[in-house]
Amino acid sequence: MARKKVMKDWTYPLDEWNIVEEQFDIDTNFLDETIFSLGNGYIGMRGNFEEGYYGPKETSLDGTYLNGFYESAPISYGEEAYGYPKYGQTMLNVTNSKIIKLYIDDEEFNMFSGKLLSYRRTLYMKEGYLERKLIWESPKGKKVKISIKRLVSLNNKHLATIEYKVKPINFSGKITLISSLDGNVKNHEEEGDPRVGSVFNGQVLKLIEKYQNKTFGALKQQTVNTKFTLVCGMENELETKNDFEILNDNPDQMVTTKYVINAEREEEITLVKYISYYTSKDYKEKELLERAKDTLLKAKEKGFKEILKGQKEFLEEFWNNALVEINGDKALQQGIRFNQFHLLQSVGRDGKTNIAAKGLTGEGYEGHYFWDTEIYILPFFLYTYPEISRKLLRYRYKILDKARERARTMAHKKGALYPWRTIDGDECSAYYPASTAQYHINADIVYVLKKYIEATDDIDFLLKYGAEIVFETARLWADLGSYIPNKGNKFCIDCVTGPDEYTAIVNNNCYTNYMAKMNLEYAHDIAKLLENEYPKIYNKLKEKINLKEEEVQEWKKAADNMYLPYDKKLGIHPQDDTFLEKPIWDFENTPDDKYPLLLHYHPLVIYRHQVCKQADVLLALFLLGDKFTWEEKKRDYDYYEPITTHDSSLSPCIFSVMASELGYYDKAYEYFMQTARVDLDNYHKNSHHGVHTACMAGTWMCVINGFAGMRVYDGKLSFNPYLPEKWDSYRFRVRFKGRQLEVNVNTKEVIYKLIDGNRLEFNHIDKKVSINEGEEKRFSLKKI
Amino acid sequence: MARKKVMKDWTYPLDEWNIVEEQFDIDTNFLDETIFSLGNGYIGMRGNFEEGYYGPKETSLDGTYLNGFYESAPISYGEEAYGYPKYGQTMLNVTNSKIIKLYIDDEEFNMFSGKLLSYRRTLYMKEGYLERKLIWESPKGKKVKISIKRLVSLNNKHLATIEYKVKPINFSGKITLISSLDGNVKNHEEEGDPRVGSVFNGQVLKLIEKYQNKTFGALKQQTVNTKFTLVCGMENELETKNDFEILNDNPDQMVTTKYVINAEREEEITLVKYISYYTSKDYKEKELLERAKDTLLKAKEKGFKEILKGQKEFLEEFWNNALVEINGDKALQQGIRFNQFHLLQSVGRDGKTNIAAKGLTGEGYEGHYFWDTEIYILPFFLYTYPEISRKLLRYRYKILDKARERARTMAHKKGALYPWRTIDGDECSAYYPASTAQYHINADIVYVLKKYIEATDDIDFLLKYGAEIVFETARLWADLGSYIPNKGNKFCIDCVTGPDEYTAIVNNNCYTNYMAKMNLEYAHDIAKLLENEYPKIYNKLKEKINLKEEEVQEWKKAADNMYLPYDKKLGIHPQDDTFLEKPIWDFENTPDDKYPLLLHYHPLVIYRHQVCKQADVLLALFLLGDKFTWEEKKRDYDYYEPITTHDSSLSPCIFSVMASELGYYDKAYEYFMQTARVDLDNYHKNSHHGVHTACMAGTWMCVINGFAGMRVYDGKLSFNPYLPEKWDSYRFRVRFKGRQLEVNVNTKEVIYKLIDGNRLEFNHIDKKVSINEGEEKRFSLKKI
Repeated sequence: MARKKVMKDWTYPLDEWNIVEEQFDIDTNFLDETIFSLGNGYIGMRGNFEEGYYGPKETSLDGTYLNGFYESAPISYGEEAYGYPKYGQTMLNVTNSKIIKLYIDDEEFNMFSGKLLSYRRTLYMKEGYLERKLIWESPKGKKVKISIKRLVSLNNKHLATIEYKVKPINFSGKITLISSLDGNVKNHEEEGDPRVGSVFNGQVLKLIEKYQNKTFGALKQQTVNTKFTLVCGMENELETKNDFEILNDNPDQMVTTKYVINAEREEEITLVKYISYYTSKDYKEKELLERAKDTLLKAKEKGFKEILKGQKEFLEEFWNNALVEINGDKALQQGIRFNQFHLLQSVGRDGKTNIAAKGLTGEGYEGHYFWDTEIYILPFFLYTYPEISRKLLRYRYKILDKARERARTMAHKKGALYPWRTIDGDECSAYYPASTAQYHINADIVYVLKKYIEATDDIDFLLKYGAEIVFETARLWADLGSYIPNKGNKFCIDCVTGPDEYTAIVNNNCYTNYMAKMNLEYAHDIAKLLENEYPKIYNKLKEKINLKEEEVQEWKKAADNMYLPYDKKLGIHPQDDTFLEKPIWDFENTPDDKYPLLLHYHPLVIYRHQVCKQADVLLALFLLGDKFTWEEKKRDYDYYEPITTHDSSLSPCIFSVMASELGYYDKAYEYFMQTARVDLDNYHKNSHHGVHTACMAGTWMCVINGFAGMRVYDGKLSFNPYLPEKWDSYRFRVRFKGRQLEVNVNTKEVIYKLIDGNRLEFNHIDKKVSINEGEEKRFSLKKI
Repeated sequence: MARKKVMKDWTYPLDEWNIVEEQFDIDTNFLDETIFSLGNGYIGMRGNFEEGYYGPKETSLDGTYLNGFYESAPISYGEEAYGYPKYGQTMLNVTNSKIIKLYIDDEEFNMFSGKLLSYRRTLYMKEGYLERKLIWESPKGKKVKISIKRLVSLNNKHLATIEYKVKPINFSGKITLISSLDGNVKNHEEEGDPRVGSVFNGQVLKLIEKYQNKTFGALKQQTVNTKFTLVCGMENELETKNDFEILNDNPDQMVTTKYVINAEREEEITLVKYISYYTSKDYKEKELLERAKDTLLKAKEKGFKEILKGQKEFLEEFWNNALVEINGDKALQQGIRFNQFHLLQSVGRDGKTNIAAKGLTGEGYEGHYFWDTEIYILPFFLYTYPEISRKLLRYRYKILDKARERARTMAHKKGALYPWRTIDGDECSAYYPASTAQYHINADIVYVLKKYIEATDDIDFLLKYGAEIVFETARLWADLGSYIPNKGNKFCIDCVTGPDEYTAIVNNNCYTNYMAKMNLEYAHDIAKLLENEYPKIYNKLKEKINLKEEEVQEWKKAADNMYLPYDKKLGIHPQDDTFLEKPIWDFENTPDDKYPLLLHYHPLVIYRHQVCKQADVLLALFLLGDKFTWEEKKRDYDYYEPITTHDSSLSPCIFSVMASELGYYDKAYEYFMQTARVDLDNYHKNSHHGVHTACMAGTWMCVINGFAGMRVYDGKLSFNPYLPEKWDSYRFRVRFKGRQLEVNVNTKEVIYKLIDGNRLEFNHIDKKVSINEGEEKRFSLKKI
């Protein structure tokens, strides 16, 4: 059911590389703040104005976030039960460092007073900065030209910087610039969300100390419960030919550097503000201030221009790696670039953090990491920027101990159970039927870990981290499932929830069983590999986790005997043991305004019907495509498509990819369109709370796995490309086993070119292709 | 699995009619307060001391409750969803009227100072009052004899009274008696129960006004959210030959009548305190004070002795009706009487209130009413005191509109869905898998309604209230279920939870489907009865609830085609569609201290296994016994018994009854023993929070339905008695169709005697028996 309509009017002008806002508008401000967010995978800054926002409270959220920096608070349950997570974790809105206030004599500049004679805001995705240019006439008639560039450094996770230029146009006189850090910050509180209210009863990031010395200022703050310490520092540098003096005001919870300048007409004044964040999650508390100072001094030494140059260089490599070019549709090109750019901005690259559901652009889902990372987002990085995917997997190793703990809480004698949503590794879900019950997260992680090893041959990672993850997750499956006489003594997995959250707590969820089988098989294979090729490391690991050889055999046995649901009559894979025994949802009598269903029906009502929020069996068909025949896939698609609402933004991309594979080209395109500009055009009406990172990565999947039909089965790469009707051509690059391959699809042919690396073998549809560095191979395009 | 052990030592001396405490003990005080609770189905007073309690805070709860008088507060969820109840309801601890303080000169009497030279507390269950007698020596050596009688009137729901006698033994001098009402009352707050904390942030029963005039005093209070008003009044009367003066102190939130008496040695002083409660739930707010005054004056006019006499008369009739006599086991006799007495004290008899899970003796389960009423408690009243059972059913009619509303919230276009737990009719459950999902509550109500009509021929009730309940519940089943092709187009009911709370959200719970079938059939039958015999009333009702004739046919069709699960291979009824496909719980490796499982395992872990908290299929076998063969019952019993933990106190009685039917006599007795003294000997270690009313009624079921094998199928009464090995004989009385029958079972024979009413027909085992008033029929006892 491809229900959702795609907008016809674009929110922002179409432009391949830039997002431009030509007019300031209160009504779209909350959304714009998300769209114009900057980030480097660690620091995230919403697109708030330096001078602050004077519009209605409910149209803005001044937000700055640090990946992995959170406060915890007890979760309140109407009725508690054993094993419910006691504490939640919420990404904190941290010290606001964006502030630069401007006074023309005694008139304070803001967008709500005086006149905006011109205005333009641009997010430069090729160069990696945000620019706001405007001409403002004060109520008293003084005109200034203001031009502000802001960047969050992709080269140094602790650094951000703002270049603020102001030029008096029709006067000479006093201009004051006040650059501040504000420690009085709170998370967003929204009416009707009692949770936020109870978790954060006011300010939880308490001020510990202030440091202030002319151009330098810093605040040390600490969270109440987690006791994390944060130092946010700034260093300011003024360039002007005019006289000025420097003052340090001392407002509550703030540090400021105030420049009072005797400005002259047409004489441009430039203030550069260097910003740095360090927290006790990375370093010892006593080092934080010194480290921040050091970062700021080095940045100042380098200067804004050099930092901007570094930003461009970083992005040049990124865009080279992540290239997806579409000819014939500017809106899509813009959408895809925007999505890729925000994925880069959101992704934690330090091995200790991950990528949140809303990136670092808003507070939706409390900054939690989900399976979205592995199943939706990580593949994008894996095939374009494998170094980053390694870091994401490294994070899963970091929280392995907590996953072991969680498994014990869930009564599993062995193994690890990864949390459904978390920041620091603890399960933070308050509703277990759609969280803890989603055991598939274990296999999701192993699935992409396997893909990672296959695509990179990174044996070092496997030996140091991967094998242990694979073994511990396999152990959990072995403990969770059982051989059920009533099911022909097959290995069954009871009481779990699959990806589809409109069906919960079922036996033998098809996706889960297939993925668990993969997990168990892979664990067995890796054990055998280690035993034969790295016996010392294997023995050490076995000793560390007290692994017995019998267990490895059990994994094999469970995998070989896994119950794989199949309905002979319909020739389809039932989503679970009872799915087909429920009535089908009455779609005909469900008006449009009752979607998403979860906001209008009690869970029991939804669970009682055959209705899917998102791809479930279909996701297995995609991820484990070599385990199913084309005919099976088609029958499954035909069965599940009409009963899926796509009330989850994780759904359309999977349907698009499968529709491409099955020749439903129109549908493939339609679903693709639901992902490509999901936030740019605010399809879900909630992008003001942050971007939809998984859906953004889904766009890439639609193109690369869908239109170009890329698959990697058993480490073997293949393509099966076609050209969507409306396009002239498209081109993209992927990395695989250290090579970089470019695929170019036009109306007539497919051209493969090995950009970099030794000879690469892959399949074009059923043909084996072998290609050397610099070489091109051409195939005529299949007809659709 | 008959796991729980029964105590060998009795908490209180064995005594057939009385509960006696021979020594005051801090360690058992909290429990004693429950055991010595008094109530009349409206007012409930815990067994607190008149002078207050000076022991450790955690060893006491000074509690007074009014049935149906509650405060509501928002329920806080970790994660909210559509249709979750927004507000909870909690029975309130109301104005404390028990207070009478005694001073000997300047020495305040309490049980923690001076010396207790003698002490005895007795609950007289035949007479209906509580007495405390003691001799106390003050620290300064003054001795007094104190004798206090307290009763809560069974004849007037608004009345309670205390007779307080004090006699100086070794001195003459000033004695002060202060009788008070205290409005500063709060519900119990226990560490680690965040719900209580958040719901009741301090005192929620606010003082509105005080009235005080010599011997009279009253407080008007109001709840914060529900805005219910309460007036508690007192009238005091002093009998003494000595001089005294009356003072009215005015402490905060209290009214007092203070008697300062020039007492003389050996001269007894008697203070009688009359207490009355009226609330805006029964009368207009402005009437409350006058009504309380009126009640108090009439009571004073009558005097304590007369009121006590009325109490005895009421109980004489009760015990005559509810007679269960056991010869050969004093402990059991005491246990059964205690249970019956507390059921009477707890049951709401005004048609507006019901019977809470803990009666009016404590705050466990927040004073909520559950299905316990219909399936466990109501049968006791139905066959002993049918007038009371009518009132309980009347309550369900009172909340029918709210049940209709709830059905709409749960997306049912028609019908009513009764709340799983409530006071005033709104669903108050915070965890839907073990509440809202327990749709069987609808059929439970109809089941006992049907039994009520069969046992009383109360057509008036059926026409006024019953039919509407039956139709609206049938409508809900019709809307809930559906004809499922994969199940041979049988009528299936998906996503519900049966009685067993260790298995949740399943398809075709056996109990639910059988009971729903009964509900639908009965609705059809009643519709036909009304159509033929009361066409005018029928048409009016049809119009009122917009009932179409097609619906009645649909009910029949659904009932006739109900899917009734049966496993041919095992010859048993599977609890639900997937129950038998789960692994059996590893009982062998579950140590005793891991029970009850729900306190030691996450719900998913429990749900994943074949393990039952309580009777589920077995309950259907009992309630709908004529739908199953003896062999089926036996196979089901043999299958489910080893996998049932009885972690619910609702379980053992059902197993006992079924064990009796199946000839498992030892087990029947063992399970019976787990119910008979459940609170007297505090089996569950939580009786301090209140008595277990359902389990108490279960004791009666064990004897009458179990040992005596009483059944009513299709309105036909039958018995199949045996004598438990350890007993000499037992005798009981039941009411049926206006007659009173006595059944007497001794070692040799069974004697039926019709005490009252016209000729009665029933079955003794397979023999038809016909008996006239005053007549006896004797049968030799079957051998076991």
